[in-house]
This record gives sequence, structure tokens and C-alpha cells, in this order.
Amino acid sequence: MTTFRIEHDFLGEKEISNDCYYGVQTMRAKENFDITGIPIGSEPLFIKAFGHVKKAAALANRDLGVLDVKKAEAIAYACDRLIAGEFADQFVSDLIQGGAGTSTNMNANEVIANLGLEYLGHAKGEYKYLHPNNDVNLSQSTNDAYPSAFRIALYLKVASFLDALEELQVAFYNKGKEFDGVLKMGRTQLQDAVPMTLGQEFNAFATALAKDVANIKLAAQSLTEVNMGATAIGTGVNAPEGYAELCVNYLADISQVPVTLAADLIEATYDTSALVQMSGVLKQNALKLSKICNDLRLLSSGPRCGISEINLPAMQPGSSIMPGKVNPVIPELMNQTCFYVIGADVTVTMAAEAGQLQLNVMEPVMGMALFTSLQYLTKACNALKEKCVVGITANAEHSKNMVMQSIGIVTQLNPILGYEECSSIAKEALATGKSIYEIVVVERQLITQMKWDEVYSIDNLIHPKFIAQ
Amino acid sequence: MTTFRIEHDFLGEKEISNDCYYGVQTMRAKENFDITGIPIGSEPLFIKAFGHVKKAAALANRDLGVLDVKKAEAIAYACDRLIAGEFADQFVSDLIQGGAGTSTNMNANEVIANLGLEYLGHAKGEYKYLHPNNDVNLSQSTNDAYPSAFRIALYLKVASFLDALEELQVAFYNKGKEFDGVLKMGRTQLQDAVPMTLGQEFNAFATALAKDVANIKLAAQSLTEVNMGATAIGTGVNAPEGYAELCVNYLADISQVPVTLAADLIEATYDTSALVQMSGVLKQNALKLSKICNDLRLLSSGPRCGISEINLPAMQPGSSIMPGKVNPVIPELMNQTCFYVIGADVTVTMAAEAGQLQLNVMEPVMGMALFTSLQYLTKACNALKEKCVVGITANAEHSKNMVMQSIGIVTQLNPILGYEECSSIAKEALATGKSIYEIVVVERQLITQMKWDEVYSIDNLIHPKFIAQ
Amino acid sequence: MTTFRIEHDFLGEKEISNDCYYGVQTMRAKENFDITGIPIGSEPLFIKAFGHVKKAAALANRDLGVLDVKKAEAIAYACDRLIAGEFADQFVSDLIQGGAGTSTNMNANEVIANLGLEYLGHAKGEYKYLHPNNDVNLSQSTNDAYPSAFRIALYLKVASFLDALEELQVAFYNKGKEFDGVLKMGRTQLQDAVPMTLGQEFNAFATALAKDVANIKLAAQSLTEVNMGATAIGTGVNAPEGYAELCVNYLADISQVPVTLAADLIEATYDTSALVQMSGVLKQNALKLSKICNDLRLLSSGPRCGISEINLPAMQPGSSIMPGKVNPVIPELMNQTCFYVIGADVTVTMAAEAGQLQLNVMEPVMGMALFTSLQYLTKACNALKEKCVVGITANAEHSKNMVMQSIGIVTQLNPILGYEECSSIAKEALATGKSIYEIVVVERQLITQMKWDEVYSIDNLIHPKFIAQ
Amino acid sequence: MTTFRIEHDFLGEKEISNDCYYGVQTMRAKENFDITGIPIGSEPLFIKAFGHVKKAAALANRDLGVLDVKKAEAIAYACDRLIAGEFADQFVSDLIQGGAGTSTNMNANEVIANLGLEYLGHAKGEYKYLHPNNDVNLSQSTNDAYPSAFRIALYLKVASFLDALEELQVAFYNKGKEFDGVLKMGRTQLQDAVPMTLGQEFNAFATALAKDVANIKLAAQSLTEVNMGATAIGTGVNAPEGYAELCVNYLADISQVPVTLAADLIEATYDTSALVQMSGVLKQNALKLSKICNDLRLLSSGPRCGISEINLPAMQPGSSIMPGKVNPVIPELMNQTCFYVIGADVTVTMAAEAGQLQLNVMEPVMGMALFTSLQYLTKACNALKEKCVVGITANAEHSKNMVMQSIGIVTQLNPILGYEECSSIAKEALATGKSIYEIVVVERQLITQMKWDEVYSIDNLIHPKFIAQ
Repeated sequence: MTTFRIEHDFLGEKEISNDCYYGVQTMRAKENFDITGIPIGSEPLFIKAFGHVKKAAALANRDLGVLDVKKAEAIAYACDRLIAGEFADQFVSDLIQGGAGTSTNMNANEVIANLGLEYLGHAKGEYKYLHPNNDVNLSQSTNDAYPSAFRIALYLKVASFLDALEELQVAFYNKGKEFDGVLKMGRTQLQDAVPMTLGQEFNAFATALAKDVANIKLAAQSLTEVNMGATAIGTGVNAPEGYAELCVNYLADISQVPVTLAADLIEATYDTSALVQMSGVLKQNALKLSKICNDLRLLSSGPRCGISEINLPAMQPGSSIMPGKVNPVIPELMNQTCFYVIGADVTVTMAAEAGQLQLNVMEPVMGMALFTSLQYLTKACNALKEKCVVGITANAEHSKNMVMQSIGIVTQLNPILGYEECSSIAKEALATGKSIYEIVVVERQLITQMKWDEVYSIDNLIHPKFIAQ
Repeated sequence: MTTFRIEHDFLGEKEISNDCYYGVQTMRAKENFDITGIPIGSEPLFIKAFGHVKKAAALANRDLGVLDVKKAEAIAYACDRLIAGEFADQFVSDLIQGGAGTSTNMNANEVIANLGLEYLGHAKGEYKYLHPNNDVNLSQSTNDAYPSAFRIALYLKVASFLDALEELQVAFYNKGKEFDGVLKMGRTQLQDAVPMTLGQEFNAFATALAKDVANIKLAAQSLTEVNMGATAIGTGVNAPEGYAELCVNYLADISQVPVTLAADLIEATYDTSALVQMSGVLKQNALKLSKICNDLRLLSSGPRCGISEINLPAMQPGSSIMPGKVNPVIPELMNQTCFYVIGADVTVTMAAEAGQLQLNVMEPVMGMALFTSLQYLTKACNALKEKCVVGITANAEHSKNMVMQSIGIVTQLNPILGYEECSSIAKEALATGKSIYEIVVVERQLITQMKWDEVYSIDNLIHPKFIAQ
Repeated sequence: MTTFRIEHDFLGEKEISNDCYYGVQTMRAKENFDITGIPIGSEPLFIKAFGHVKKAAALANRDLGVLDVKKAEAIAYACDRLIAGEFADQFVSDLIQGGAGTSTNMNANEVIANLGLEYLGHAKGEYKYLHPNNDVNLSQSTNDAYPSAFRIALYLKVASFLDALEELQVAFYNKGKEFDGVLKMGRTQLQDAVPMTLGQEFNAFATALAKDVANIKLAAQSLTEVNMGATAIGTGVNAPEGYAELCVNYLADISQVPVTLAADLIEATYDTSALVQMSGVLKQNALKLSKICNDLRLLSSGPRCGISEINLPAMQPGSSIMPGKVNPVIPELMNQTCFYVIGADVTVTMAAEAGQLQLNVMEPVMGMALFTSLQYLTKACNALKEKCVVGITANAEHSKNMVMQSIGIVTQLNPILGYEECSSIAKEALATGKSIYEIVVVERQLITQMKWDEVYSIDNLIHPKFIAQ
Repeated sequence: MTTFRIEHDFLGEKEISNDCYYGVQTMRAKENFDITGIPIGSEPLFIKAFGHVKKAAALANRDLGVLDVKKAEAIAYACDRLIAGEFADQFVSDLIQGGAGTSTNMNANEVIANLGLEYLGHAKGEYKYLHPNNDVNLSQSTNDAYPSAFRIALYLKVASFLDALEELQVAFYNKGKEFDGVLKMGRTQLQDAVPMTLGQEFNAFATALAKDVANIKLAAQSLTEVNMGATAIGTGVNAPEGYAELCVNYLADISQVPVTLAADLIEATYDTSALVQMSGVLKQNALKLSKICNDLRLLSSGPRCGISEINLPAMQPGSSIMPGKVNPVIPELMNQTCFYVIGADVTVTMAAEAGQLQLNVMEPVMGMALFTSLQYLTKACNALKEKCVVGITANAEHSKNMVMQSIGIVTQLNPILGYEECSSIAKEALATGKSIYEIVVVERQLITQMKWDEVYSIDNLIHPKFIAQ
């Protein structure tokens, strides 16, 4: 049978089930905020990061003599259990919440206090022995604990996204090598341009993603600046001297994230530019992934009335009415994920602009936008790699035939015949349907067969040399 | 003990648990698409709408003699159970999915087929008696069934959002009446302007929202154009003559949504402008709600170092460090919800632009964006009304005092003294800290006490008359 | 030789060239605001609309006895000259300006005052005879005059955009008729689907645009609600009784725009939702135009290694290096214009959200965004129509050949052979390169030649009938 | 009298005025593209950068023996004149153009050819002596020349923006020092929090901007990767061996921009992520500048019914109706500029996503968005510094009084009295209007007067120490 305890805050009393490690303020948050229906516990790294932050604070407080050794031990014990991934179900505040994360911070304070109380042999709720605010939150405010935990969680989440992105990059790189000898038409503005290889095309996808990996890593560094010790607004009110540095040292050690103390705690307490920057590079990456998937869909268009240079693995019947239809469902999945991420960046943009004076109260929705974006992108990268890229095959013969029947290959004759003569050849080809070979070698006899063979050897089409008259 | 049946499609065979009403194609979708972790079953109106669509199709097919009466009866039975809200847990495709909704459509086809099979006394999977494609999907394609069901579900979801929005509007309207006599300073560009009442301010919030209610209703009408009978691309291939009209008639009847058949089925099959429009008016509404909440936060700023004209109900302790602090958490909740909606509109924008040729394959992410936006906004409107607006109180005395000590009230003397004299008075007041009264009546003696009393009576401040010399 | 006059406001004196009809406040604005380098005079309809507003106000003031008849006559004379398109060069405030449009309003007040002074036989600057604030701005504030003029100008600008859009729509419609008999492959998800005609495709473009025309007209109605008589914040302070209604009547008459007086002047003074709505429908239209241009570029891709169903008129050599290359430059022009408009909508979004309390001070940047969007879209629609759509030709033979060699046409056999048999046929075709005909009629002999001819007659491909066994 | 010459390209002949240095292809562009009405010549750095690029190419071509020495000299001469800022009026293509910049590149080729022809003693148009394509564009394509010139121009433009931003940053820093001793209330969530100094607040603005300066510099580095030698699609077709490296060396030398050759020319030819990144950091900066201006407007709100901690310099009369009103017009100017930049980032986003296969044809609109954003932001930063920040004054007495009458200062007593006791004090203060001092020292006698004086000395309020019982 469920039993209850009574907790109170300055708004009054509330009954809390004794099953719950959270307390009155979390309960209020649960009642006040019900938007997404997704609790913060759904983001385990966030809970873990609160474990890091609260433990670091407790140890620093202990060292500075403002927190009893036994209490510090109890808090550390509780934090270790959160870090181990336990009790995520006790974090019930909604991802979107008012109050700048106060509810999330109090949720952590309360769960840690009650875990600590049990460790100390007390019952949940006996806060005189270990108090959520006076002890667990000692020398802290939501306004430093929350953003610090948020940035650590984000840093860790970015790391696992980068793993997925790098694996995808490698998959493209490998395909680039595999398709090294596949000649195909290059296209600009969707019009036939000049020849290239399918290998170059896939290798370029890898190059593009490698740049993003570097870019995202750089942006992640901005997340490592934390403002522990700032307390309410950055003046450090109520934090003992030396606390900020000591706490951040502990925090780096405990979390294994290379956090450093912000130089200007006033600025660091309200500024969200590290979040905006992370969102920006994710959007940048989404644009690139979307472009790549657009290309995969174009190149695999057909099978008979499109470009059809490549085949994507068939993942499912493509139509409930058209038999045999197979659609590029995995690239489409990625496109849509990217559109979500691009939209989420606007959410972050709005939220960042809404910061006022000493705090940006909109960090929770930025958290929601960033955590979901990273989650979705990670999954989409894995899907794209496993269910699409690794299984792509080339229609090499078809691709080469298209090249040889194209008009674009006249470009190779510019250095020999000049731009204007080549234009006239192209014009005739377009009007009559003839091939370039037919016009140049057979009819106009502008170059010899030998020259033609030199210019249009597969090798010279793939690695064009400058061949003048 | 779980038993399995074997199902196949043209990609091969798969084992399906006999507990499942869905079949092989849904199973593939489940494996292929795992982005949000949120199944389409989480949106009950979407499942319900598929019940409407599939039942309407079955009845039309029956009437036209292309579907066996008994099969039609079985399909209708299954649809009725979906419409009743059952079996939502069988809809397991992810909200974000490739394939333009094929997986969602096939999920519906399979669940309905298996429910129908049981109704007919057969085992799940015995599709020769009732086939997901040949029977349930008869005369349909994903490309007409999916968008039609999506629009119906959206229409119904909009309706329940409008209920919440209208209630919020009424709450503001009532507050407007309650605050009818509360004199306060009007502000433009955050600078003191001229007097008004708090009632006018709250009433204007109601006016603004009432416009949006009308606006959203109008946009919802665009959702009622459906393309049943279009089949794959709008040419109606494989649909019997007369089917489209008959099906849509049934659909209107079954769903009680006033759907009509699109005049141009080619266009209707790919066009997403009804979705863009709905997203646009929701964004427009979000901008308005956000502005209102910004105002509520400004007006309640303080308690001692801000404007402090109103008090919002205290919902929770506002700080883990600052005792007694109470924050405007509910307006902040709404602001963040609005930022989500504004971001989601960009997702819809990207997705709409990505439509190609005869289909927009990105509808699923548009669905995700629109369903969540509506869900979140509905909850946020309810929260704003119940946990904030109805409990707002006015600091009438303080507000009135600010008016009387303001410089802005000199404006009322323009018609008597002219703009330039008034400017000089204002300038002196600003420089010296004197009140307008002191300068105008006592020092410069520009008007009599009687005139002053006429111009600055509470009544004339609230309902200013044109008073010339 | 330039002569100068001295003008002053409450910040001090400034020298103004006697060539200038504007005065001291405009001069300050010119110095204060220099962002875009584009003066408001570049938007002639805005100047014209100020002529409408100021004339309407003067006549109403005259009728109500608060403005001298002679002065009213002078103001009306000056306004008529603005309405006639004169003196746009005197409107020198930057498109982006602080102050909520005060500078634009004062620019109008000053130019009108000085024109009126000359009419009355006085020199510029002799404001005691006709004062920019006391007379020209009488019973007004920037906060009603500016938004009213802005909305009227926008309404007129939208009207001329609609002309261009409708002409483009007609051009597509005509092409739809021209291409009525051109059989082609329909495509969903870039994969071959089922046959259709090129005429249906172009006709659908026309249908899509026709909806937008209606939609934009509807949104334009919201622009006709004006707040004349609101003065500073909507309380009507300093406006004589009956002024608001009278002024708006005059305004409708003078401008020929069906303006009406807002019911709630407090709300109407700060609300920008009519602007957000207009921006929203323009964005919606931009999405559609961009999608259409994407399609035109896809359909004309090639000439040899793409879809190549249509040819766009060649407008210029397409490459500085590739001879004979012709690119779809006009659709690309439209795409980019659309991207500008979509970006501008976000500018409007940010500006709308930034409204505070009794005014939205960000209307000038909304004006910049909307006027440029309309201007650019109008020009792009004209270019698309004249330089692209009307000259498009079809590659009918090539298109038909693609249809007949496609796999997608197997769909037509569903009602005869069932979805699964058709899937198996499609699978074989895909694997072997054989045609559907070869497999169905020659090898498997599933239907007779006669049945084949019935199902695959050009007529049945274009207007498919339901043909069962 | 204007004389004409006849020029032709493969579309036919056109008359060109002999006054014009541009030729037939520019003329076509002028006719084809008329959207913004703003010619590329309006961005002088872009023309200059084309001078750099074309000169570097000519010198490399000369060294490699593919370009006649005399011709190279003529091209170099022409480029030097462009670099010197001459002939910008000859660059008449519209900022928004189809064709991926071909028109801009050909405009440069033609102007340089004709300038070179005159240098060589020939008449304009005698292209057999110096040809726009064969000579000026030798070993190049639009697809390498255009993006390279674009990135160089952008790099230079960013540099001058950074000058403005750094000056603004210094202005805030100086104000921070000036306001060092001004005690004021810190605010979170618009609610009174704990004390701080106005100096800290302004210093934090400087800190925030300093981070952006570093950030933008980093992003600018990505712009220095160029793809000269890629020619049409990155395969280097028609460029002699060794050309790419040689050309880029010359380019770095001539432009003084540290350009390097891209490692993967295929990727570098289509990838626009350096542009997206620049747009992203500008947006990030815009968000910060907008937030700062929001704060300036909040802090200067009043003068009597707002926060009124600071005064912004009066730039112009604030109202056409309210005498003496002074508005924060310069921060408002910046806000709107920021909204433009945020919108422009979405334009860049859309354009980046639209890249297809071997080229992103949408670079022109990205150029338009980025050049205007930089231009506007530069001007707005200068205005904000000169016309606002340097003239800001503090209302120190008023600010201090607000602190001492606030409830928030009870926070300082947490370590002495505990969070719960402090909450109860705060609650009483709020309910009764009493001061904290009154309750704590006089009534409840919880601490001594001496302790009070220690905790609430100005020094301890500004630099709070941890004071326990």
C-alpha cells in the first residue's frame, strides 16, 4: 500500500507518495508543466550530468568547510547512483518548463537529498538531516547548476553523435574507393556538364562530412565553459571564496569532460551562445546531409525514366498500389530528420534572442531542441549508413554510355578547337541528335581519330590532362 | 507462449508474432524507421481518421461492385473499432518515416485486414480471404489515403485546439471587464506614453486572440479538400468510375468532417499548401501568444524594482537560492511552447519546398510538426488560462500613482497649449524631477486648477475627450 | 547657390537647405538611420498612401472644426501632389529605422507642411502658418498614421503582385492545354510511377497558383482594417469625437482601398498580425513557386543524361567553359527570389514577436521585408512567365518512349492480375531489363494481345479506366 | 553620340553601346535578371576580388605557357584597375541571378577583355586579340572563379565588420569601467534577484561581443579555402598541370588574403558550408546584439514608470503627438537590423540545401544575403557605438534606492538564517510592503545591526563575501 509523507515549501504543503525520491517542488513542477509529456529522465545524460555537478559542488563545499563531511558523503553516494544511470524514472519534470530549469534543478536536489537520507539511515523527507536547498544546492543556484549540467550533458551527447557521423563518413569514403573506376556524367544546374567518376562523387560526400566532424568538435569546446560558483546572477553571492575554481576542478575530474571556469561569470550566467553555436553547426550538418540525400535520390531516380546511375538497397515495398516500386526511403528519412533539425535551430534562435538581463529563462526549450536534434540525427546517420550507403551499387555500363552519348564531352576540345567552334558543334548536336564524335571526327573532320582516342580515353575522361592542338 | 506466423512481401518473408494485428510491411517499417521513438499510434485522431478513410473506401468499392459485400462488412467492422479508439498500440510506425506515409497506410491496411479476418472467422495472416492491398487498399494508393486521413485528423485536432484557445480568449475578456476601472500608464517603445486602463489592455488580448480563432477556422477549411480517388498520382488509375465522388460522400458522412473532393486531383495529390497554411496560422497565433506572455511578464516585473502593475498567481518557489522569489513560470512555459511552434513552421516550410513532381514525400515530418505543435499549444493555452490568467490581480493604487507622477500625461494638454509648449514642459519635468502639475499649474500657471481637474479627472484619463482651450 | 533655413525641435536647432521640403526631424532621421541606404521614397506607394492618410485626416479635422479651412485646403493640395507621385525624392528616411516610423510620419508631416506653406504663399519653415505637428499631424499620432499608411501601401502593392501572379497562372494553364496530348511518366519519390500527360502536369501548376491568388486576396482583406483615431495608444487621446469614423470614411474614399475602422483601437495599434499573415501567404506562395521551378528544372534536366521531357527557352550561354550548355536560369532566378521571401518571413516573424505593450516598434523592418518581397516576387513572376513558361516545348516522342519502356505501367494490370503477381512481374523486369509487355504477353502469356492493346492504348494511359478481368 | 558595336554568342547577335566595357553576355544577363535592381557593382569588394582572381589566373596561365605574355600583361593591367576600384559601374548584373554566377563571371571576363584590348591598342569587341572566354577565362570556369572571388570578397568584408564590432565591444568595456561603482538590482526572469553593479552588466556585454569577434574570425578562415583549378566540376578539365597550385599562390599574393587550395576539388566546387557557417556566426552575433539592445531598452524604460537605471542619449523627438517623449531609437535600429540578419540566415539555409550534384547554383542569393547582412550590421554597430553606448549615463541614486528597498537582498542572509527562514521573511515583506531590514533587524531581531551593516555594506553588496553566522 502506498504511503505518503507531507512536504512543504513556502507555497504550502503537499502529499508525496513515499515511493518517490522527488519532493514537493518536483511535484509542483509536474502539475505546472505538462507540454511535451516527455520527462527530463528520458535524456539519461542530463541526469548523469546533474550527478556530476552536485557531487562536485558537495566535495568543494566539504573541502571549504561549509558542508559537513557526512552530508557530503551522502550526497556523493547519491550522485554516484545517478551517474550509474539509476533513478532516471524519478526525473519527471517536462522537457519544456518555465522557471529557467529551477524545477529540474530542484528535482535533482530532492532526489539526491532523499537518496542521501536513506544512505544516512533516515527516512525520505527528513530534510533536517540533509536538505535539498541548504545542503545539496549549497553554494549553488539553478542559474549555475542547471546550465553547467546542461552543457556537460550536451557535450557527452555530441560525442556519441560524432561517432555515428564519423562512421557514416567512413562508409562514404569506402564507397568512393569502391566506385573509383566508374565513369559517369557530372552535372551542374541539373544539366549535363563534364565526365567524372562515381568514386569522386562519393569521396566528396566523405570530405564534406569530415569537415563537419571537425566543425562540430570545435563547437563542442564552447560547451565546456561552465559557470559554477556564479550562483544567482554571476556575482557569486553565498558561495565561499575559492569555491568556483575548486568545484570546477572536481567537476572536470568527475565528469571527464574538460570543463573550465568562465572568466566573466555575469556574462556566462545569461549567455547562450555556446548553445546557439552548437545548434548552428548541427543545422549546417543537416543541410549537408540533406543535400547528400537529395543527390542519392537523384542519382537513383528511375529505374527507367530517370538518371539511374546507382541503386539503393530495397528496404520495403515502395507502394501500396504500384507493384515492384522501390523508393529511396532511407534518404527520405534523413531529409525529414534534417528538416526537423533546421526547424529546431529556429526554436533555439528564438529562445536565445529572448534572454533578458541576468538570465536566459528559455534554456529548457533549447535543451529540448538540441537533445532531440542530436538523438534524431544520430539515429538517422546510423540508418543511412547501415540501411543505405553500404549497400549502394553502381550501374557502371549505363553511366558510361550516357557519358559517351553526351554533348558535354565537347568541353574537352576547347583547348584544341576554341570555345566558339565547340559551341557550334554543341549546337548542332543538340539540334540533330548526333553524337559529338559524329560531328567532330566524321563530318567536320576537325580532329583525327587518333586525337579523339587520346582525348576520350577512359583514363583521360577520368583524369583529364590539358591537351592542346 | 508467443506464436508466430510467416508473412511475405516482394522483398521476402518475415516472422510476425501472432499477437500483432500488423503484418510484414509494418514490421519492415518498424525496423527501417526509428527516429523519434514516437509511434503514430500516439496520435489517436490519426488512427481514427484512417478508420474513416478505409471504411469510406470499402463502402464505395462495395457499392460499385468491385469489393465483395462480406469483405466490405469485415473492413467496416475493423474500421469501426479503430474509430472507437481501439488498437492504437498496433500502430507502431515512427512519426518520422520515409516512403511518403506508405508504412502508415500499410500499417492501417494490415491491422484492418487482420481484424477483418478475425471477424470473418479466419486467422490473422490468411490474406487470401481479405488482403491488405487488394481489398483494404482497393481503389486507393498511399498517395490519396494517407493525405486524406492526415488532413481529417488535423482538422479534428485543430478543433480541440480551438476550444482551448477560445477558453483562453474568454478568460482574457473577463479579466478585461474585471480591470475596467484600473487606471495605468500606457507604454510605447517601453517609454511612458499616455494613460489607459488595465481593462483595455486585457480586453485587447482577447480581441487579438479572437481574430486568430477566426483565422484558424478559415485555414482549417483548406484541410477539408481531399483527393480520394486520385490513387497513385491523381489520374485515378485502378479506381472504378464514380468511385472518387462516392467515397468522399461516405467519408464526409462517416467522419462528420465536411470534406469535399479536390477539383484537380493531380495537384491535390502533391500539394501541401493546406498544411503550410495551417502551420502559418499556428505560427501567427504563437507570435501573438508569445507577445501576450512577454507583456504579462513585463507588467508583473518586480516586485519592487520593476513595473509591477499586476501579480501573477505564484505557482512554485522561484529559485533554489533566492528565498521568496516567485517567477512568471506559466507565461515562460507558453513562450517556449511558441518558440517550438515557430521552429516547427520552418520544418514544415522546408518539407513543403522539398515536394517533387507528383508527390510530396515529406508529409510525415509535416505531420509530426503539426500534431506536436497543436498538442503543445493546446496544453499551454489550458495552463495559461487556468494557472495564470484567471488568477491575475491588479496593483491598482500603484498603477494610478505612476500615471499621476508621469510626464506622459502632458500630452493631454496639446490641444490647449500646443505641441511645442508641452515639449518644453516635458523637458523641464525630465530635467528637474518635478511633476507636470507643479510646472503647469503652480509655476507657469498655464491653466487653472479647474481646467486641470477637468483634463485629469480619472474619467477623462480613461476615456479622454478632446478638450481645447 | 544653396540657401539655408534654421529649424528647431526640442533637441535644438539645425540648418536645412531651402531646397528641401523636409525639415529638422527628417534631417535627424537621415543622420540617425543609415542602414540599407534605401530611402522610403523608393517605395512610391508608401508615399502615396501617406498622401491619402494625411488628406483624410485634414478633411475630417476641418469638418469637425478643429482645423482651419484654409489650412485644410493647403494640406489637401500637398497630399494631392504626393498622391500624384511627386516629391518622392523628399522622402529620405531609411527603410530600416528606429522609432516605430516616427521619422517617416514626420517626414510626411514636414513635406506636406512645406508644400502647403508654399501653396498658402509662405516660405518653407514658416510653421506658425502651417505646422507639421499641430496641423498636419492633428488628431493623429505616428502610431495610427504610420500603420494605416503602411497597410494601404501594402494593399496596393499586393494588388499589382496579384496581376503578375495571375498572368503566370494563365501562362501555365495555357501550356496545360497545349500539352494536353503529351503522354509522359508520372513520378513519385523520383521513381517512375504511372503515366499521365504533360498537360495535366502544367495544368496542376495553374491550379496550385490559382489557389494562392485566392489565398492572398483573402489575406489582403486583413490589411484594410486601420486604426485612424487611435492616436498614441488607441485611447484616442487628443482626437475630437467622431473623428475616427469620419477620417476612415474619407480615407476609403480618397484611397479607393476599402478600409474600415478597427473595432478595438488598443489592439489595432499594436497588433501586426495582418502583416504576419500577408508575409505568411507570400511565403506559402514562394514555396509553391519554388517547387514548380524545381520541377521545371528536373523535367528539363539533360539534354542527354537526364529526364529531358521539356525544353526551356535558352536565355544565355550557360557556361564560361562548357560550350553549348544551356541552363535553366530563369527558374533558378525564381528559386532564389523565393528563398529571399522565405527568409524575409522570418524577419517578419522576429519583428512581430518583439512587439511590446501598446506598440510594435519593429514595423519598419516588416515594411522593408514585405515591400521587397512583393517587388522581387512580382518581377520574378513576370520573368518566369515571359522568359520561360510561354516558350517551353515538349519532347513528346522521348516522353512517350520512356512510358512504354517503364516498369510502372504494370500498375494498370493490378485489377486483372492482382498486386502480388504484378509485383513478381515488376521484379523480373527490374532484374532482367525486359519490358512489361515482353513478360506479360509474350512470356507468361497472362493477358491477350487484345487486352494489352485495350489497357495500354494511349487513351487509356492518359485517362485510365478501371479494367478488370 | 553613342555608337554601337555588334557582339555575338551562340544565341545570336546583340548591339552593345561602345561606352560599355561589358559585352553581349552581360547584356543578356541585364535583360534576363532584374529582381533587386541592385547591381553587383554595388559591392566594390566583389569586383576587386574578381580582379584578384583573374589576374592570378592570367599569371599562372602565362607561366605555364598557355597564355601569351602580352595578353597576360593586358589582363593584369585591366585587373589592376578593377582592384583599384575603377569601373564598378560596368558591373551591371543583378545581385540575384540565375546561372550560378556565370553572368557575374562573364561580366568580369568581358570588362577585363575590353580594358585589355584598349591597353593593347585595339577597339572594344575585337575579341580575336583578347577573348573573354579563351583568354580571360582560360583554365577557369564560373564554377571556380566565381566562388573563389565571392569568398575573397566576403573575407575582406568580414574584416571591416570586425573592426566595427571590436570598436563597439571596446565602447561597452569602457562603460563597464565607468559604471564600476554603480550598485543596482540584478534581475532574472524579469524579477528582482540580487544586487550587482551596472559596471558588471556593461562589462558582460563586452565579454559577450569579444567571444563573437573570436568566433567570426574563426569562421572567416573557412572562407580562405578556394577551388581555383577545379574548372567546371572539380576534375580540372582544361586546366594545365600545376595550374591550380600556381594560381592559388598568385592569388594569395595578389589579394593578401591567406587563401589555400582545397584538398578535394569536387567537394569544394559545390560545397557552401563556409558560407553557411559565416551566416551562422553572423546570426549568432545578431542574437547577442539584439539581446543587448533589448536590455538597453529595458534598463532605460521609464522615465517614471519603468526601470530607468540608465539614460540613452536623446537622438530625436520620440513622438509626433507626445511632447518630450524620447525613445531608444538606436537600439531599436539594431534590433531590426538583427532581425534582417536572422531572416537572411534562413535564406542562406534554403539556398544551401538546394545545392544539387556538382554545383550549388544558388550562391548568388547567398552572396546577396551575406553582403547585405555584413553591410547593415557594420553600420548598425557604428550607430550603436557612436549614437548610443558612448553617451549612456547612469541613474546611480535611483538604482541604489531600488536595491535597498528590494526583497531580493534577503538572499544574502541564507548562510546565516537558512533558506526557509529567509523565505518566510520574503513572504512577509511581499505581503506587507515592509523592508527586509525592518523585518530582520527591527521586528524579528534575527541579526544585529552590526551584522546587518557588514552584510549590506555597499562593498559587500557589490563583491559579496560568504558570511555565515
